[in-house]
Amino acid sequence: MSIKNVTIAGAGTLGSQIAYQSALCGYQVRIWNPHPERAEKRIAALRPFYKHDLKLTDEQFDAGLKNIVSITNDWETSFKDADLVIEAVPENLDMKKDFYAQLCSVLPKEAIIASNSSTYVPSQLVQLVDRPEKFLHLHFANHIWVFNTAEIVGNAKTDPAVIQEVVAFAKGIKMLPIVLKKEQHGYIMNALSVPFLNAALGLWGKGVADPITIDKDWMNSTGSPMGPFMSMDVIGLRTVWAIFSSHADTPEQKAIADKLKAMIDAGHYGVEAGEGFYTYPHPAYEDPNFLKE
Amino acid sequence: MSIKNVTIAGAGTLGSQIAYQSALCGYQVRIWNPHPERAEKRIAALRPFYKHDLKLTDEQFDAGLKNIVSITNDWETSFKDADLVIEAVPENLDMKKDFYAQLCSVLPKEAIIASNSSTYVPSQLVQLVDRPEKFLHLHFANHIWVFNTAEIVGNAKTDPAVIQEVVAFAKGIKMLPIVLKKEQHGYIMNALSVPFLNAALGLWGKGVADPITIDKDWMNSTGSPMGPFMSMDVIGLRTVWAIFSSHADTPEQKAIADKLKAMIDAGHYGVEAGEGFYTYPHPAYEDPNFLKE
Repeated sequence: MSIKNVTIAGAGTLGSQIAYQSALCGYQVRIWNPHPERAEKRIAALRPFYKHDLKLTDEQFDAGLKNIVSITNDWETSFKDADLVIEAVPENLDMKKDFYAQLCSVLPKEAIIASNSSTYVPSQLVQLVDRPEKFLHLHFANHIWVFNTAEIVGNAKTDPAVIQEVVAFAKGIKMLPIVLKKEQHGYIMNALSVPFLNAALGLWGKGVADPITIDKDWMNSTGSPMGPFMSMDVIGLRTVWAIFSSHADTPEQKAIADKLKAMIDAGHYGVEAGEGFYTYPHPAYEDPNFLKE
Repeated sequence: MSIKNVTIAGAGTLGSQIAYQSALCGYQVRIWNPHPERAEKRIAALRPFYKHDLKLTDEQFDAGLKNIVSITNDWETSFKDADLVIEAVPENLDMKKDFYAQLCSVLPKEAIIASNSSTYVPSQLVQLVDRPEKFLHLHFANHIWVFNTAEIVGNAKTDPAVIQEVVAFAKGIKMLPIVLKKEQHGYIMNALSVPFLNAALGLWGKGVADPITIDKDWMNSTGSPMGPFMSMDVIGLRTVWAIFSSHADTPEQKAIADKLKAMIDAGHYGVEAGEGFYTYPHPAYEDPNFLKE
Protein backbone atom coordinates (compact mmCIF):
# COMPACT_ATOMS: atom_id res chain seq x y z
CA MET A 1 0.00 0.00 0.00
CA SER A 2 1.12 3.50 -0.65
CA ILE A 3 -0.45 6.37 1.27
CA LYS A 4 -2.48 8.82 -0.81
CA ASN A 5 -5.50 9.77 1.30
CA VAL A 6 -4.74 11.25 4.67
CA THR A 7 -7.26 12.32 7.25
CA ILE A 8 -6.23 14.65 10.02
CA ALA A 9 -8.42 14.30 13.07
CA GLY A 10 -8.44 17.47 15.11
CA ALA A 11 -7.41 20.76 13.54
CA GLY A 12 -5.86 22.59 16.43
CA THR A 13 -2.45 24.26 16.19
CA LEU A 14 -0.59 21.19 14.97
CA GLY A 15 -3.47 19.36 13.29
CA SER A 16 -4.09 22.27 10.93
CA GLN A 17 -0.37 22.52 10.12
CA ILE A 18 -0.09 18.78 9.39
CA ALA A 19 -3.20 18.96 7.21
CA TYR A 20 -2.03 21.91 5.12
CA GLN A 21 1.56 20.66 4.80
CA SER A 22 0.25 17.28 3.56
CA ALA A 23 -2.08 18.98 1.08
CA LEU A 24 0.69 21.26 -0.18
CA CYS A 25 2.84 18.20 -0.81
CA GLY A 26 0.17 16.59 -2.97
CA TYR A 27 -1.68 14.27 -0.60
CA GLN A 28 -5.48 14.17 -0.69
CA VAL A 29 -6.40 15.55 2.70
CA ARG A 30 -9.59 15.32 4.72
CA ILE A 31 -9.97 17.17 7.98
CA TRP A 32 -12.23 15.92 10.72
CA ASN A 33 -13.04 18.47 13.39
CA PRO A 34 -16.04 18.86 15.70
CA HIS A 35 -16.21 22.52 14.64
CA PRO A 36 -15.42 22.63 10.91
CA GLU A 37 -15.59 26.43 10.75
CA ARG A 38 -12.78 26.73 13.31
CA ALA A 39 -10.68 24.30 11.29
CA GLU A 40 -11.21 26.40 8.16
CA LYS A 41 -10.06 29.52 10.00
CA ARG A 42 -6.94 27.82 11.28
CA ILE A 43 -6.01 26.61 7.83
CA ALA A 44 -6.54 30.09 6.37
CA ALA A 45 -4.40 31.58 9.13
CA LEU A 46 -1.39 29.64 7.88
CA ARG A 47 -1.17 31.67 4.65
CA PRO A 48 1.05 34.51 6.00
CA PHE A 49 3.45 32.02 7.59
CA TYR A 50 3.92 30.01 4.40
CA LYS A 51 4.27 33.23 2.40
CA HIS A 52 6.84 34.65 4.80
CA ASP A 53 8.83 31.55 5.74
CA LEU A 54 8.67 29.53 2.51
CA LYS A 55 8.15 32.46 0.10
CA LEU A 56 5.02 30.84 -1.32
CA THR A 57 2.93 32.99 -3.67
CA ASP A 58 -0.82 33.23 -3.09
CA GLU A 59 -1.30 30.99 -6.12
CA GLN A 60 1.02 28.37 -4.65
CA PHE A 61 -0.73 28.51 -1.30
CA ASP A 62 -4.12 28.18 -3.04
CA ALA A 63 -2.88 25.17 -5.00
CA GLY A 64 -2.22 23.47 -1.65
CA LEU A 65 -5.74 24.29 -0.46
CA LYS A 66 -7.20 22.49 -3.50
CA ASN A 67 -5.89 19.19 -2.11
CA ILE A 68 -8.04 19.58 0.98
CA VAL A 69 -11.00 17.44 -0.06
CA SER A 70 -13.24 18.06 2.93
CA ILE A 71 -13.42 19.78 6.30
CA THR A 72 -16.28 18.32 8.29
CA ASN A 73 -17.37 16.71 11.52
CA ASP A 74 -18.93 13.84 9.58
CA TRP A 75 -17.22 10.53 10.37
CA GLU A 76 -18.08 8.69 7.16
CA THR A 77 -16.91 11.47 4.85
CA SER A 78 -13.75 11.98 6.84
CA PHE A 79 -12.57 8.43 7.30
CA LYS A 80 -14.07 5.97 4.82
CA ASP A 81 -11.36 6.51 2.18
CA ALA A 82 -8.40 7.12 4.49
CA ASP A 83 -5.10 5.27 4.03
CA LEU A 84 -3.68 7.07 7.06
CA VAL A 85 -5.33 8.87 9.95
CA ILE A 86 -3.25 11.30 11.99
CA GLU A 87 -4.86 11.86 15.36
CA ALA A 88 -4.30 15.32 16.78
CA VAL A 89 -7.23 15.61 19.18
CA PRO A 90 -6.76 17.30 22.58
CA GLU A 91 -4.41 15.63 25.09
CA ASN A 92 -7.18 14.27 27.29
CA LEU A 93 -7.42 10.52 27.70
CA ASP A 94 -11.24 10.43 27.84
CA MET A 95 -11.49 12.45 24.65
CA LYS A 96 -8.95 10.19 22.94
CA LYS A 97 -10.90 7.12 24.15
CA ASP A 98 -14.16 8.37 22.66
CA PHE A 99 -12.45 9.42 19.47
CA TYR A 100 -10.67 6.11 18.86
CA ALA A 101 -13.81 4.06 19.63
CA GLN A 102 -15.82 5.93 17.01
CA LEU A 103 -12.90 6.03 14.58
CA CYS A 104 -12.38 2.27 14.63
CA SER A 105 -16.07 1.73 13.88
CA VAL A 106 -15.85 3.58 10.54
CA LEU A 107 -12.21 3.28 9.45
CA PRO A 108 -11.30 0.66 6.81
CA LYS A 109 -9.38 -2.22 8.40
CA GLU A 110 -6.24 -1.64 6.30
CA ALA A 111 -5.84 2.03 7.25
CA ILE A 112 -2.93 3.09 9.43
CA ILE A 113 -3.50 5.18 12.56
CA ALA A 114 -0.81 7.55 13.80
CA SER A 115 -1.08 9.63 16.95
CA ASN A 116 0.63 13.01 17.23
CA SER A 117 0.34 12.90 21.02
CA SER A 118 3.10 14.72 22.94
CA THR A 119 1.87 13.60 26.32
CA TYR A 120 1.12 9.89 25.90
CA VAL A 121 3.36 7.08 24.69
CA PRO A 122 2.16 4.31 22.35
CA SER A 123 1.68 1.73 25.12
CA GLN A 124 -0.87 4.08 26.71
CA LEU A 125 -2.94 4.57 23.55
CA VAL A 126 -2.60 1.25 21.72
CA GLN A 127 -5.33 -0.30 23.87
CA LEU A 128 -7.78 2.21 22.40
CA VAL A 129 -7.44 0.90 18.83
CA ASP A 130 -8.49 -2.30 17.07
CA ARG A 131 -5.26 -2.66 15.05
CA PRO A 132 -2.09 -2.51 17.17
CA GLU A 133 0.03 -3.67 14.22
CA LYS A 134 -1.13 -0.62 12.24
CA PHE A 135 -0.87 1.86 15.10
CA LEU A 136 2.10 4.08 15.89
CA HIS A 137 3.04 7.61 16.93
CA LEU A 138 4.10 10.33 14.50
CA HIS A 139 5.10 13.41 16.45
CA PHE A 140 5.53 16.86 14.93
CA ALA A 141 6.99 20.11 16.21
CA ASN A 142 5.14 23.42 16.02
CA HIS A 143 5.63 25.31 12.70
CA ILE A 144 6.25 22.05 10.90
CA TRP A 145 7.09 23.78 7.62
CA VAL A 146 10.28 25.08 9.28
CA PHE A 147 10.89 22.75 12.24
CA ASN A 148 10.43 19.65 10.15
CA THR A 149 11.42 16.85 12.50
CA ALA A 150 8.93 13.98 12.62
CA GLU A 151 9.52 11.54 15.47
CA ILE A 152 8.15 8.06 14.79
CA VAL A 153 7.74 5.22 17.26
CA GLY A 154 5.64 2.09 17.27
CA ASN A 155 4.11 0.02 20.02
CA ALA A 156 5.31 -3.52 20.76
CA LYS A 157 3.15 -4.96 17.96
CA THR A 158 3.59 -2.38 15.20
CA ASP A 159 4.38 -4.00 11.86
CA PRO A 160 7.85 -2.80 10.70
CA ALA A 161 6.39 -2.36 7.20
CA VAL A 162 3.89 0.11 8.66
CA ILE A 163 6.75 2.08 10.21
CA GLN A 164 8.38 2.21 6.79
CA GLU A 165 5.18 3.42 5.12
CA VAL A 166 4.91 6.23 7.63
CA VAL A 167 8.60 7.07 7.17
CA ALA A 168 7.92 7.39 3.44
CA PHE A 169 4.89 9.57 4.12
CA ALA A 170 6.92 11.79 6.46
CA LYS A 171 9.52 12.27 3.73
CA GLY A 172 6.66 12.89 1.29
CA ILE A 173 5.61 15.92 3.31
CA LYS A 174 9.23 17.10 3.61
CA MET A 175 9.87 16.02 7.18
CA LEU A 176 13.08 14.46 8.49
CA PRO A 177 11.80 11.16 9.91
CA ILE A 178 13.46 10.16 13.19
CA VAL A 179 12.57 6.58 14.14
CA LEU A 180 12.82 5.65 17.83
CA LYS A 181 13.50 2.04 18.75
CA LYS A 182 11.61 2.32 22.04
CA GLU A 183 8.89 4.61 23.32
CA GLN A 184 10.08 7.52 25.42
CA HIS A 185 8.18 10.29 27.18
CA GLY A 186 9.04 13.46 25.27
CA TYR A 187 10.42 11.38 22.38
CA ILE A 188 14.02 12.54 21.71
CA MET A 189 13.74 16.29 21.28
CA ASN A 190 11.77 17.04 24.44
CA ALA A 191 13.70 14.45 26.44
CA LEU A 192 16.84 16.47 25.61
CA SER A 193 15.42 19.95 25.81
CA VAL A 194 13.49 19.70 29.08
CA PRO A 195 16.61 19.11 31.27
CA PHE A 196 18.52 21.67 29.19
CA LEU A 197 15.85 24.36 29.64
CA ASN A 198 15.50 23.44 33.33
CA ALA A 199 19.24 24.01 33.79
CA ALA A 200 18.92 27.43 32.13
CA LEU A 201 15.98 28.32 34.38
CA GLY A 202 18.04 27.19 37.36
CA LEU A 203 20.88 29.60 36.49
CA TRP A 204 18.36 32.43 36.05
CA GLY A 205 16.59 31.55 39.30
CA LYS A 206 19.85 31.54 41.25
CA GLY A 207 20.84 34.89 39.77
CA VAL A 208 24.02 33.55 38.14
CA ALA A 209 23.29 35.62 35.04
CA ASP A 210 20.39 37.18 33.19
CA PRO A 211 18.65 35.35 30.32
CA ILE A 212 20.41 37.32 27.57
CA THR A 213 23.86 36.53 29.01
CA ILE A 214 23.00 32.84 29.32
CA ASP A 215 21.72 32.75 25.73
CA LYS A 216 24.86 34.49 24.44
CA ASP A 217 27.12 32.02 26.22
CA TRP A 218 25.29 28.98 24.81
CA MET A 219 25.06 30.41 21.28
CA ASN A 220 28.68 31.52 21.15
CA SER A 221 29.99 28.32 22.74
CA THR A 222 28.03 25.90 20.57
CA GLY A 223 27.22 27.80 17.38
CA SER A 224 23.50 27.27 18.00
CA PRO A 225 21.18 29.82 16.39
CA MET A 226 19.12 30.02 19.59
CA GLY A 227 19.78 30.15 23.30
CA PRO A 228 17.53 28.49 25.88
CA PHE A 229 15.53 31.63 26.73
CA MET A 230 14.93 32.39 23.05
CA SER A 231 13.57 28.84 22.73
CA MET A 232 11.32 29.34 25.75
CA ASP A 233 9.88 32.50 24.24
CA VAL A 234 9.08 30.52 21.07
CA ILE A 235 7.57 27.58 22.97
CA GLY A 236 5.55 30.03 25.06
CA LEU A 237 6.04 30.56 28.79
CA ARG A 238 2.64 29.10 29.66
CA THR A 239 3.79 25.74 28.31
CA VAL A 240 7.24 26.11 29.90
CA TRP A 241 5.60 26.95 33.23
CA ALA A 242 3.17 24.02 33.01
CA ILE A 243 6.02 21.55 32.45
CA PHE A 244 8.43 23.12 34.95
CA SER A 245 5.92 23.64 37.77
CA SER A 246 4.76 20.03 37.55
CA HIS A 247 8.26 18.99 38.73
CA ALA A 248 9.05 21.95 40.98
CA ASP A 249 9.75 20.22 44.28
CA THR A 250 12.42 22.31 46.02
CA PRO A 251 11.91 25.87 47.32
CA GLU A 252 14.38 27.08 44.65
CA GLN A 253 12.35 25.42 41.90
CA LYS A 254 9.08 26.75 43.30
CA ALA A 255 10.60 30.25 43.28
CA ILE A 256 11.50 29.84 39.60
CA ALA A 257 7.98 28.63 38.81
CA ASP A 258 6.67 31.74 40.57
CA LYS A 259 8.95 34.01 38.55
CA LEU A 260 7.62 32.44 35.35
CA LYS A 261 4.05 32.72 36.61
CA ALA A 262 4.55 36.43 37.34
CA MET A 263 5.73 37.00 33.76
CA ILE A 264 2.70 35.13 32.43
CA ASP A 265 0.32 37.06 34.68
CA ALA A 266 1.85 40.29 33.40
CA GLY A 267 1.05 39.13 29.87
CA HIS A 268 4.71 38.51 29.01
CA TYR A 269 4.42 34.90 27.95
CA GLY A 270 6.61 34.82 24.86
CA VAL A 271 6.81 35.64 21.16
CA GLU A 272 3.06 35.24 20.73
CA ALA A 273 2.45 37.92 23.38
CA GLY A 274 5.02 40.33 21.91
CA GLU A 275 7.05 40.01 25.11
CA GLY A 276 8.73 37.29 27.11
CA PHE A 277 12.43 37.18 27.98
CA TYR A 278 12.84 39.39 24.90
CA THR A 279 10.60 42.05 23.31
CA TYR A 280 9.14 41.37 19.86
CA PRO A 281 8.91 41.87 16.90
CA HIS A 282 12.51 43.12 17.04
CA PRO A 283 14.22 41.13 19.79
CA ALA A 284 17.75 42.04 20.92
CA TYR A 285 19.18 38.94 19.27
CA GLU A 286 18.32 40.26 15.81
CA ASP A 287 21.03 42.90 16.30
CA PRO A 288 24.00 41.76 14.19
CA ASN A 289 26.29 42.73 17.08
CA PHE A 290 24.40 40.53 19.59
CA LEU A 291 27.32 38.09 19.87
CA LYS A 292 30.03 40.72 19.56
CA GLU A 293 29.78 42.54 22.85
CA MET B 1 45.71 50.69 34.51
CA SER B 2 45.53 49.07 31.15
CA ILE B 3 46.77 45.53 30.68
CA LYS B 4 49.84 45.12 28.45
CA ASN B 5 51.98 42.46 30.05
CA VAL B 6 50.32 39.11 30.60
CA THR B 7 51.88 36.10 32.22
CA ILE B 8 50.35 32.69 31.70
CA ALA B 9 51.19 30.31 34.51
CA GLY B 10 51.02 26.73 33.34
CA ALA B 11 51.24 25.91 29.64
CA GLY B 12 49.09 22.82 29.37
CA THR B 13 46.36 22.48 26.75
CA LEU B 14 44.57 25.70 27.63
CA GLY B 15 47.48 27.66 29.07
CA SER B 16 49.41 27.40 25.82
CA GLN B 17 46.36 28.46 23.82
CA ILE B 18 45.71 31.48 26.04
CA ALA B 19 49.37 32.45 25.81
CA TYR B 20 49.59 32.26 22.03
CA GLN B 21 46.19 33.91 21.45
CA SER B 22 47.25 36.81 23.70
CA ALA B 23 50.58 37.14 21.91
CA LEU B 24 48.91 37.05 18.50
CA CYS B 25 46.62 39.87 19.60
CA GLY B 26 49.57 42.08 20.54
CA TYR B 27 49.99 41.53 24.27
CA GLN B 28 53.48 41.04 25.70
CA VAL B 29 53.33 37.48 26.94
CA ARG B 30 55.47 35.63 29.43
CA ILE B 31 54.96 31.94 30.07
CA TRP B 32 55.80 30.37 33.38
CA ASN B 33 56.03 26.59 33.32
CA PRO B 34 58.02 24.14 35.47
CA HIS B 35 59.21 22.50 32.22
CA PRO B 36 59.85 25.32 29.74
CA GLU B 37 60.75 22.92 26.91
CA ARG B 38 57.30 21.31 27.12
CA ALA B 39 55.68 24.72 26.97
CA GLU B 40 57.66 25.56 23.84
CA LYS B 41 56.50 22.36 22.17
CA ARG B 42 52.89 23.04 23.00
CA ILE B 43 53.06 26.54 21.58
CA ALA B 44 54.71 25.25 18.40
CA ALA B 45 52.02 22.59 18.08
CA LEU B 46 49.37 25.29 17.69
CA ARG B 47 50.70 26.37 14.28
CA PRO B 48 48.69 23.89 12.14
CA PHE B 49 45.47 24.74 13.98
CA TYR B 50 45.84 28.49 13.48
CA LYS B 51 46.83 27.92 9.85
CA HIS B 52 43.86 25.63 9.21
CA ASP B 53 41.15 27.30 11.28
CA LEU B 54 42.10 30.98 11.01
CA LYS B 55 43.96 30.77 7.67
CA LEU B 56 47.05 32.33 9.21
CA THR B 57 50.19 32.33 7.07
CA ASP B 58 53.46 31.13 8.60
CA GLU B 59 54.59 34.76 8.69
CA GLN B 60 51.48 35.76 10.61
CA PHE B 61 51.90 32.89 13.05
CA ASP B 62 55.56 33.85 13.55
CA ALA B 63 54.59 37.46 14.19
CA GLY B 64 52.50 36.20 17.10
CA LEU B 65 55.44 34.22 18.46
CA LYS B 66 57.53 37.41 18.60
CA ASN B 67 55.25 38.74 21.33
CA ILE B 68 56.18 35.86 23.61
CA VAL B 69 58.88 37.54 25.68
CA SER B 70 59.95 34.54 27.76
CA ILE B 71 59.20 30.91 28.47
CA THR B 72 60.82 29.92 31.73
CA ASN B 73 60.37 28.41 35.18
CA ASP B 74 61.98 31.47 36.74
CA TRP B 75 59.55 33.32 38.99
CA GLU B 76 61.17 36.75 38.83
CA THR B 77 61.43 36.84 35.05
CA SER B 78 57.91 35.57 34.64
CA PHE B 79 56.04 37.73 37.07
CA LYS B 80 57.89 40.92 38.02
CA ASP B 81 56.46 42.95 35.13
CA ALA B 82 53.02 41.35 34.90
CA ASP B 83 49.85 43.43 34.77
CA LEU B 84 47.75 40.26 34.64
CA VAL B 85 48.53 36.67 35.58
CA ILE B 86 46.33 33.92 34.18
CA GLU B 87 46.66 30.79 36.28
CA ALA B 88 46.25 27.58 34.34
CA VAL B 89 48.11 25.14 36.59
CA PRO B 90 46.75 21.61 37.11
CA GLU B 91 43.40 21.24 38.87
CA ASN B 92 44.88 20.06 42.14
CA LEU B 93 44.28 22.15 45.22
CA ASP B 94 47.71 21.49 46.77
CA MET B 95 49.47 22.48 43.58
CA LYS B 96 47.36 25.64 43.33
CA LYS B 97 48.15 26.44 46.98
CA ASP B 98 51.91 26.18 46.44
CA PHE B 99 51.69 28.12 43.21
CA TYR B 100 49.69 31.03 44.65
CA ALA B 101 51.91 31.29 47.74
CA GLN B 102 55.03 31.67 45.62
CA LEU B 103 53.28 33.88 43.09
CA CYS B 104 52.10 36.38 45.69
CA SER B 105 55.65 36.69 47.03
CA VAL B 106 57.00 37.97 43.69
CA LEU B 107 54.01 39.57 41.94
CA PRO B 108 53.68 43.39 42.06
CA LYS B 109 50.82 44.41 44.35
CA GLU B 110 48.83 46.09 41.57
CA ALA B 111 48.77 43.07 39.27
CA ILE B 112 45.50 41.23 38.64
CA ILE B 113 45.25 37.46 39.08
CA ALA B 114 42.76 35.43 37.06
CA SER B 115 42.24 31.70 37.41
CA ASN B 116 41.17 29.58 34.47
CA SER B 117 40.04 26.80 36.82
CA SER B 118 37.14 24.64 35.56
CA THR B 119 36.85 22.69 38.77
CA TYR B 120 37.02 25.29 41.50
CA VAL B 121 34.91 28.39 42.06
CA PRO B 122 36.37 31.74 43.21
CA SER B 123 35.34 31.31 46.85
CA GLN B 124 37.51 28.18 46.99
CA LEU B 125 40.64 29.85 45.58
CA VAL B 126 40.41 33.42 46.86
CA GLN B 127 41.83 32.39 50.24
CA LEU B 128 45.07 31.45 48.44
CA VAL B 129 45.82 34.99 47.26
CA ASP B 130 46.84 38.20 49.01
CA ARG B 131 44.57 40.45 46.90
CA PRO B 132 40.92 39.33 46.84
CA GLU B 133 39.84 42.60 45.23
CA LYS B 134 42.18 41.88 42.30
CA PHE B 135 41.35 38.19 42.01
CA LEU B 136 38.73 36.64 39.72
CA HIS B 137 38.12 33.72 37.38
CA LEU B 138 38.51 33.91 33.62
CA HIS B 139 37.45 30.63 32.10
CA PHE B 140 38.22 29.56 28.54
CA ALA B 141 36.98 26.74 26.32
CA ASN B 142 39.33 24.39 24.46
CA HIS B 143 40.43 25.70 21.02
CA ILE B 144 39.94 29.27 22.16
CA TRP B 145 40.67 30.71 18.71
CA VAL B 146 37.38 29.15 17.52
CA PHE B 147 35.33 28.60 20.69
CA ASN B 148 35.95 32.09 21.94
CA THR B 149 33.70 32.35 24.97
CA ALA B 150 35.43 33.72 28.07
CA GLU B 151 33.43 33.31 31.27
CA ILE B 152 34.30 35.85 33.94
CA VAL B 153 33.28 35.84 37.59
CA GLY B 154 34.63 37.52 40.67
CA ASN B 155 34.67 36.59 44.31
CA ALA B 156 32.67 38.56 46.91
CA LYS B 157 35.40 41.20 47.16
CA THR B 158 36.48 41.63 43.54
CA ASP B 159 36.66 45.30 42.53
CA PRO B 160 34.14 45.95 39.72
CA ALA B 161 36.81 47.99 37.95
CA VAL B 162 39.01 44.88 37.86
CA ILE B 163 36.18 42.92 36.26
CA GLN B 164 35.96 45.65 33.62
CA GLU B 165 39.71 45.54 32.97
CA VAL B 166 39.55 41.80 32.42
CA VAL B 167 36.49 42.20 30.18
CA ALA B 168 38.52 44.64 28.08
CA PHE B 169 41.43 42.21 27.97
CA ALA B 170 39.10 39.36 26.92
CA LYS B 171 37.82 41.51 24.06
CA GLY B 172 41.42 42.43 23.27
CA ILE B 173 42.20 38.78 22.59
CA LYS B 174 38.98 38.39 20.56
CA MET B 175 36.91 36.56 23.13
CA LEU B 176 33.23 37.15 23.84
CA PRO B 177 33.29 38.06 27.56
CA ILE B 178 30.40 36.56 29.54
CA VAL B 179 30.23 38.04 33.03
CA LEU B 180 28.51 35.97 35.72
CA LYS B 181 26.91 37.77 38.67
CA LYS B 182 27.48 34.83 41.00
CA GLU B 183 29.92 31.96 41.05
CA GLN B 184 28.56 28.70 39.68
CA HIS B 185 30.15 25.26 39.33
CA GLY B 186 30.62 24.73 35.59
CA TYR B 187 30.05 28.46 34.98
CA ILE B 188 27.20 28.80 32.43
CA MET B 189 28.27 26.62 29.53
CA ASN B 190 29.03 23.47 31.48
CA ALA B 191 26.09 24.01 33.82
CA LEU B 192 23.87 23.84 30.72
CA SER B 193 25.70 21.18 28.78
CA VAL B 194 26.21 18.59 31.53
CA PRO B 195 22.46 17.90 32.07
CA PHE B 196 21.92 18.07 28.31
CA LEU B 197 24.65 15.53 27.56
CA ASN B 198 23.46 13.36 30.46
CA ALA B 199 19.97 13.28 28.93
CA ALA B 200 21.46 12.22 25.59
CA LEU B 201 23.47 9.48 27.29
CA GLY B 202 20.29 8.37 29.05
CA LEU B 203 18.44 7.92 25.74
CA TRP B 204 21.39 5.98 24.34
CA GLY B 205 21.65 3.85 27.46
CA LYS B 206 17.95 2.99 27.40
CA GLY B 207 18.16 2.04 23.73
CA VAL B 208 15.63 4.68 22.63
CA ALA B 209 17.79 5.49 19.62
CA ASP B 210 21.39 5.32 18.47
CA PRO B 211 23.73 8.34 18.83
CA ILE B 212 23.46 9.37 15.18
CA THR B 213 19.64 9.43 15.30
CA ILE B 214 19.68 11.46 18.51
CA ASP B 215 22.16 13.94 17.01
CA LYS B 216 20.07 14.31 13.84
CA ASP B 217 16.92 15.00 15.85
CA TRP B 218 18.59 17.72 17.95
CA MET B 219 20.35 19.33 14.99
CA ASN B 220 17.27 19.34 12.78
CA SER B 221 14.94 20.48 15.55
CA THR B 222 17.12 23.32 16.81
CA GLY B 223 19.35 24.29 13.90
CA SER B 224 22.44 23.54 15.99
CA PRO B 225 25.58 22.65 14.05
CA MET B 226 26.34 19.80 16.47
CA GLY B 227 24.38 17.09 18.24
CA PRO B 228 25.21 15.90 21.76
CA PHE B 229 27.26 12.88 20.66
CA MET B 230 29.29 14.97 18.23
CA SER B 231 30.03 17.30 21.15
CA MET B 232 31.08 14.38 23.33
CA ASP B 233 33.50 13.17 20.66
CA VAL B 234 35.03 16.66 20.62
CA ILE B 235 35.22 16.92 24.43
CA GLY B 236 36.72 13.42 24.54
CA LEU B 237 34.99 10.42 26.10
CA ARG B 238 37.54 10.15 28.90
CA THR B 239 36.41 13.54 30.19
CA VAL B 240 32.73 12.70 29.57
CA TRP B 241 33.14 9.43 31.43
CA ALA B 242 34.94 11.09 34.34
CA ILE B 243 32.12 13.61 34.81
CA PHE B 244 29.28 11.16 34.19
CA SER B 245 30.61 8.31 36.32
CA SER B 246 31.15 10.64 39.29
CA HIS B 247 27.34 11.05 39.43
CA ALA B 248 26.28 7.59 38.26
CA ASP B 249 24.14 6.41 41.16
CA THR B 250 21.41 4.23 39.62
CA PRO B 251 22.02 0.85 37.94
CA GLU B 252 20.95 2.44 34.62
CA GLN B 253 23.53 5.21 35.01
CA LYS B 254 26.23 2.75 36.03
CA ALA B 255 25.45 0.74 32.89
CA ILE B 256 25.91 3.87 30.76
CA ALA B 257 29.22 4.63 32.50
CA ASP B 258 30.30 1.07 31.69
CA LYS B 259 29.33 1.47 28.03
CA LEU B 260 31.46 4.63 27.87
CA LYS B 261 34.31 2.90 29.66
CA ALA B 262 34.23 0.02 27.18
CA MET B 263 34.57 2.49 24.29
CA ILE B 264 37.49 4.18 26.02
CA ASP B 265 39.18 0.84 26.75
CA ALA B 266 38.79 -0.06 23.07
CA GLY B 267 40.64 3.16 22.22
CA HIS B 268 37.50 4.83 20.84
CA TYR B 269 37.53 7.93 23.01
CA GLY B 270 36.63 10.62 20.51
CA VAL B 271 37.96 12.85 17.73
CA GLU B 272 41.47 12.79 19.16
CA ALA B 273 41.52 8.96 18.91
CA GLY B 274 40.11 8.91 15.37
CA GLU B 275 37.05 7.12 16.68
CA GLY B 276 34.30 7.71 19.19
CA PHE B 277 30.59 7.78 18.43
CA TYR B 278 31.73 8.67 14.89
CA THR B 279 34.80 7.73 12.86
CA TYR B 280 37.29 10.47 11.93
CA PRO B 281 38.66 12.29 9.97
CA HIS B 282 35.54 11.98 7.80
CA PRO B 283 32.62 11.53 10.20
CA ALA B 284 29.15 10.71 8.87
CA TYR B 285 27.91 14.21 9.69
CA GLU B 286 30.19 15.76 7.08
CA ASP B 287 27.99 14.14 4.42
CA PRO B 288 25.85 16.95 2.97
CA ASN B 289 22.86 14.57 3.08
CA PHE B 290 23.29 13.85 6.80
CA LEU B 291 20.11 15.72 7.70
CA LYS B 292 18.19 14.72 4.60
CA GLU B 293 17.50 11.06 5.20
